[in-house]
Amino acid sequence: MTHYKLTLAYDGTHFAGYQIQPQQRTVQGVLQKALGKMAKVDAIHVDGSGRTDSGVHALGQVVSFDYPGNIPEQAMLRAMNSLMPLDIEILKAEIVPAAFHARYSARGKRYLYRVARGRFTDPFNRLYTGHWPYPLDLNRVQEALKDVVGTHDFTSFAASGGVIQDKVRTIYEATVKDDPAHHEVIFEFYGNGFLYNMVRILVATLLEIGSGRREVHDFIRLYAVKDRQQARGTAPASGLYLKEVYYD
Amino acid sequence: MTHYKLTLAYDGTHFAGYQIQPQQRTVQGVLQKALGKMAKVDAIHVDGSGRTDSGVHALGQVVSFDYPGNIPEQAMLRAMNSLMPLDIEILKAEIVPAAFHARYSARGKRYLYRVARGRFTDPFNRLYTGHWPYPLDLNRVQEALKDVVGTHDFTSFAASGGVIQDKVRTIYEATVKDDPAHHEVIFEFYGNGFLYNMVRILVATLLEIGSGRREVHDFIRLYAVKDRQQARGTAPASGLYLKEVYYD
Repeated sequence: MTHYKLTLAYDGTHFAGYQIQPQQRTVQGVLQKALGKMAKVDAIHVDGSGRTDSGVHALGQVVSFDYPGNIPEQAMLRAMNSLMPLDIEILKAEIVPAAFHARYSARGKRYLYRVARGRFTDPFNRLYTGHWPYPLDLNRVQEALKDVVGTHDFTSFAASGGVIQDKVRTIYEATVKDDPAHHEVIFEFYGNGFLYNMVRILVATLLEIGSGRREVHDFIRLYAVKDRQQARGTAPASGLYLKEVYYD
Repeated sequence: MTHYKLTLAYDGTHFAGYQIQPQQRTVQGVLQKALGKMAKVDAIHVDGSGRTDSGVHALGQVVSFDYPGNIPEQAMLRAMNSLMPLDIEILKAEIVPAAFHARYSARGKRYLYRVARGRFTDPFNRLYTGHWPYPLDLNRVQEALKDVVGTHDFTSFAASGGVIQDKVRTIYEATVKDDPAHHEVIFEFYGNGFLYNMVRILVATLLEIGSGRREVHDFIRLYAVKDRQQARGTAPASGLYLKEVYYD
């Protein structure tokens, strides 16, 4: 048995999310089947750093697994890429200590969210951005992002249905940058953990603040009320990317 | 009757090309049906600057048509965009003299071709680039491009099946530029006209020259032999964009 860590990118458009589900095309399902094929077994279980929803992309998802045999890192990288569909690319394969676990060893994650600012939907970016054609004051967004950084109870920003009780998370960095050349604004969030749909709800709320539909410091109120109904919007999956997972 | 010119962008991935065909989703078909809906008729015929194949994209395709009524340019732009699927965007609507014809009035066209240079296929660019992971000497490509510029008989670079007899075309500009930030090289060709598949065959030949699989000045030989079998390759549709159509 050899223990591996893979770092991978995928276009989430044609997946029913990361997590395996019967009768659905999922990233985990594709990985497990490919590894099974290599090892001549049915499938090999992989642990992911966390799930991504249908339509959500990854620039640096991480998975770990035990493989029955010892394949050098570069050979594992080549072999897995040769078995991947074109919407998954394995970026890196590493042999790691058996104690490494893609989810439990993770210390933090970084998400990116791309917002298209054109008047109409850009055909080439419709699957890779959210779209917000309304006037947007980035100074207001910057000001609101200061309230996002820190340790907060994000109950108002978690989709219902999650089983996790503790909704307190720490955001180390929350930024927005203008990319006028591509007519986009790009959010990044780096934190120790994220609740279900949290980034997409944060982005929707920040856009509403930037367009004057909410008070600049509405986050302070939303943390206090702990009510998902107050932060209504959820930005589309298409703009969201799991950019990086951090380990010690 | 008012005569209009539309400039549009589309993601060619999910179209069976520009030109209308029975039972197929085509750009022309979508445009004609939308205009018909606006005018409350079955469909309104549109003339395109030329067809693009299935999977080929457009950043600036041009069409023209007669519309039974007089709609201001901005209203036409808004109305058409509201009827377009997300993979077509109307960039501009103009009222033009009746003599204007998207194809017959065109004086030249510019095509762009994006080549991904990564070792493996990039999931996010698989539908928007060709892929050439082999070593590539851009100096050799630059040298070969000098042979592309000018007036030549492009018989060796036209897919068979075309009905056009005269295969002489003039290329005003042919360039390649390196985009190391995106790990791509980008070709552009500006000429008075292009034969069927010509840009894709030119690109495949140029890549072979750049990788040392053909002589640098192989174009000179290929013009002379007038034999499609000699320029074998055709770069994938996914990398090709109709960038601009020029009119007087």
